[in-house]
Amino acid sequence: MTAPPIVLATDFGLSDAYVGMMRGVIHSINHAAHVIDLTHGIGPQDVRHGAVVLTDSFRYFPAGSIFVAVVDPGVGTDRAAILLETPDARFVAPDNGLLTLVCRQYEPFFGDTNQSAPAPVPQACRVWRLTNPDYWRHPVSNTFHGRDVFSPVAAHLSLGAPPNVLGDPAPTITTLALPIPRPERNAIQGQVVFADAFGNLVTDITADLLDDIGVAPGDPSTTVTIAGHTIAGLARTFHDPPGSDLPSSSLRALIGSHGRLEIAIVDGNAASTLNAGAGVPVSINGRANNRSP
Amino acid sequence: MTAPPIVLATDFGLSDAYVGMMRGVIHSINHAAHVIDLTHGIGPQDVRHGAVVLTDSFRYFPAGSIFVAVVDPGVGTDRAAILLETPDARFVAPDNGLLTLVCRQYEPFFGDTNQSAPAPVPQACRVWRLTNPDYWRHPVSNTFHGRDVFSPVAAHLSLGAPPNVLGDPAPTITTLALPIPRPERNAIQGQVVFADAFGNLVTDITADLLDDIGVAPGDPSTTVTIAGHTIAGLARTFHDPPGSDLPSSSLRALIGSHGRLEIAIVDGNAASTLNAGAGVPVSINGRANNRSP
Amino acid sequence: MTAPPIVLATDFGLSDAYVGMMRGVIHSINHAAHVIDLTHGIGPQDVRHGAVVLTDSFRYFPAGSIFVAVVDPGVGTDRAAILLETPDARFVAPDNGLLTLVCRQYEPFFGDTNQSAPAPVPQACRVWRLTNPDYWRHPVSNTFHGRDVFSPVAAHLSLGAPPNVLGDPAPTITTLALPIPRPERNAIQGQVVFADAFGNLVTDITADLLDDIGVAPGDPSTTVTIAGHTIAGLARTFHDPPGSDLPSSSLRALIGSHGRLEIAIVDGNAASTLNAGAGVPVSINGRANNRSP
Repeated sequence: MTAPPIVLATDFGLSDAYVGMMRGVIHSINHAAHVIDLTHGIGPQDVRHGAVVLTDSFRYFPAGSIFVAVVDPGVGTDRAAILLETPDARFVAPDNGLLTLVCRQYEPFFGDTNQSAPAPVPQACRVWRLTNPDYWRHPVSNTFHGRDVFSPVAAHLSLGAPPNVLGDPAPTITTLALPIPRPERNAIQGQVVFADAFGNLVTDITADLLDDIGVAPGDPSTTVTIAGHTIAGLARTFHDPPGSDLPSSSLRALIGSHGRLEIAIVDGNAASTLNAGAGVPVSINGRANNRSP
Repeated sequence: MTAPPIVLATDFGLSDAYVGMMRGVIHSINHAAHVIDLTHGIGPQDVRHGAVVLTDSFRYFPAGSIFVAVVDPGVGTDRAAILLETPDARFVAPDNGLLTLVCRQYEPFFGDTNQSAPAPVPQACRVWRLTNPDYWRHPVSNTFHGRDVFSPVAAHLSLGAPPNVLGDPAPTITTLALPIPRPERNAIQGQVVFADAFGNLVTDITADLLDDIGVAPGDPSTTVTIAGHTIAGLARTFHDPPGSDLPSSSLRALIGSHGRLEIAIVDGNAASTLNAGAGVPVSINGRANNRSP
Repeated sequence: MTAPPIVLATDFGLSDAYVGMMRGVIHSINHAAHVIDLTHGIGPQDVRHGAVVLTDSFRYFPAGSIFVAVVDPGVGTDRAAILLETPDARFVAPDNGLLTLVCRQYEPFFGDTNQSAPAPVPQACRVWRLTNPDYWRHPVSNTFHGRDVFSPVAAHLSLGAPPNVLGDPAPTITTLALPIPRPERNAIQGQVVFADAFGNLVTDITADLLDDIGVAPGDPSTTVTIAGHTIAGLARTFHDPPGSDLPSSSLRALIGSHGRLEIAIVDGNAASTLNAGAGVPVSINGRANNRSP
């Protein structure tokens, strides 16, 4: 059990047998494989959602973990299959931008563009194109490379196959257009990336960005605006901060479990109440005098 | 694989990455941890639902299993985090009453009150408050102690950490108000606790309580009343008992897979058909002459 | 970890604790059991759906895997519980036809009838009736043999228990009526078996049957008819084949991840758009001159 775990993250859901087939393929190659499900609830074909979940999650797993990340609207086309090796983990995935935000952890402005395009691989990382069919399952379908390409490659990696046998090194990796919300004075304009199952609206404004404008949880002078509503204060928890005079069932803005600005409703569902989801603008304003000199 | 398994039971659902992050944290601490999912489908913040599922399930797992039970509406407030050790298993959970019915297995009337309150720990059990941050994952969020406190503590327990290093012994544990339905003559008045995915309505009337009023499966003279409907007979299975003249697609009352009185519709959904769910009153009446002298 | 894995396939869903209880029972008997979920999303009591998923999936798992297959509308009645041993895997299941299509892999026309009935076990296989209660969990409920009979039997098998101690050899196994769609000239008339979570409509027309009428992916002269719509061409992928003049968001017919004719809508949901599901007729017509002489 000292072999690295294989961690699955897909948009397949769990109601079909697709994830089960992947597990079967992995265990057929490596009987002792240690397979862990990160999630199968990425929004269908929502590559940006997948990119956020991967970057927010991978450090919770053992170093060296092998992630099989499959959000693959281009399956069956000529988009490449790749292996990304970072100092912390390995990722087997389609080359469609799904790993953009993982790469950003090793190069601060990676993917900070308005257009999807190939970009040089971050210096700390390496990429291989998975071109060697000897490590795939045959016959290879046109619709399910998660089962026929990514899973068998991950299983072989977990058995110690070196990346060089799986394919050729690649100098670039495809980025998704994921512009970093820019602070302007003491404010940041971002947007919702996805709603979780509780209806909490998770945004592209990270805790680090909030630091940049001097906003901290508990600060009652901060305001957050979304879908025509303005929320006073950045809460510490889903509950009123001590001494707060906020009404008990109102909207809350807080740094949530993803380490991101999140909009929630106590005992309620912010996504359905606000009729808001991915792409909806969110702005946060700190006090004018918050910023460090 | 002789270490005790870690069993997860939460209200997080499986569509987000939250449960995956917990798994990652556990395996980061104990690479060889054996993690089993009991369920992640407890009703959101429904502590009573969680209490029933835990007590009905834990004896199906290996002795010594470490349950991580997270239904935690008070996360981020000053509610305590606890470890409950029973003669059969260990439970890491928020101290909010979630373990009330587990405790009742060791002390018959535990939590048989109309008000949530601290109560002395059952004699056969022990409780510790998890106050030692050395065994948590840092930084500790305000929104996700399942990942940052409960999971790492369970992982350390699975590696053999003694309870005393995790925190301080506590003389009390918080109970939920879960009054035991009282037999009156040959009848019991209880209520629905939750509906399962098939729409079966699971109640707080256990098979033991039915014994008390002399009601047994197959008895055609028993009547069950719910939401204005009266069901004749306590069925043995979802199907008509042999010789029954019950119409084939009617309501059924039976002792279900939870060992509780359950209302079901053959090939149908009792919850939606009756528009009934948690809290709806259910009564069962045995024959007047059923009771033992 | 050289013991064969136990693979679970049920219609229980994952929102309740039922699957968790099965896992607990298995691990209580075999602490080191290696349990893999194939799926718990079979349509409730949809034995045909289960039969298709099992036959399409089992070869992706390690040889010798022990499948626990539970779609069991007759639980608590006198339907038998059986063990089917094939040259490739073992299956513990109710004897209700759920294994019909697995058997068909060893005898081409197995279950090719219009009526459910007992049939001789395929020559390459063996069947036992699970009649020995020593290998069950007690008390045995009337509603949940998945937990009380099938799971413990599978756990004992994984520990090496020989089939003969579990019950008696049986000469027959119950088949479901699953007539094989018959090619007529260059056409096949079949039907939808189930819709997956993406709304793709999976049919009973296998890739092998398409071979029989000389239809191959990419052939633009093929037509598929479903629910009043006619689809021109059998696509290779969810995307337009190169050079295609099909509108980009129309219906697609293709061989999907199950190795079956499938109807899909690119970036859409065919099941809801066509208001189609299990039982809806589908026909595919190849060119008149496609057939081999």
